[in-house]
Amino acid sequence: MISASSLAKTPSPPYYAVIFASRRPHGDRGYDQMAERMVALASQMPGFLGVESVRDVDGFGITVSYWESEDAIRQWKAHAEHQIAQRTGKAVWYTDYIVRIAKVERDYCRMPEQLRQPSSSAKPTEIPPST
Amino acid sequence: MISASSLAKTPSPPYYAVIFASRRPHGDRGYDQMAERMVALASQMPGFLGVESVRDVDGFGITVSYWESEDAIRQWKAHAEHQIAQRTGKAVWYTDYIVRIAKVERDYCRMPEQLRQPSSSAKPTEIPPST
Repeated sequence: MISASSLAKTPSPPYYAVIFASRRPHGDRGYDQMAERMVALASQMPGFLGVESVRDVDGFGITVSYWESEDAIRQWKAHAEHQIAQRTGKAVWYTDYIVRIAKVERDYCRMPEQLRQPSSSAKPTEIPPST
Repeated sequence: MISASSLAKTPSPPYYAVIFASRRPHGDRGYDQMAERMVALASQMPGFLGVESVRDVDGFGITVSYWESEDAIRQWKAHAEHQIAQRTGKAVWYTDYIVRIAKVERDYCRMPEQLRQPSSSAKPTEIPPST
């Protein structure tokens, strides 16, 4: 089972990110179960590289999923069960949201070596994080 | 004062995103004050477009800042006070982290019209969110 509450083990860039920021009203209404199911489903899609997700107690959340290509993102968007979740999200779960599709061009990290994808050529560097 | 706990009012793509995912150990150690100061500082930098930030109770967080250009990102990275925060982050605040620099190519949203940048040509669409 993929955990979305930790750093995603992505390979060296380039690859793609779907940055999904949203605000939820109070009340679960099936949200947590759907969110868990979507992570499990996405992780089985071709081209899926990882996901990172956080939501605070006030209902503001950011989920970033990582993909090999734009085509992989399109396939995930078109997945039947995901489409139902997207429609329910618009109708029930989200007050407002914005989805941004971005091409990751470079990265810097400090994480245990074993968390890095074996294929990655990126190493922990002296370049510090931007906030 | 910019709030980082809400949707950033970004213009139409293209623009750049700095996706910063990190894990923090327990204990504040000056973190909250620094984080607030960095948002205030960044928002005064040329090319700053907005920021979205969430951290959960377990210490996992995602901050995405948006910039007009890669040059604007470089200037912010090189800012003297930000450099101190970056060094302290590595030494004290973060267990592990990854910074990804990405070019935002397209977006879809549902948010009140008044939250959109006036210059934006993007409109709320029927294209639903990916998770």
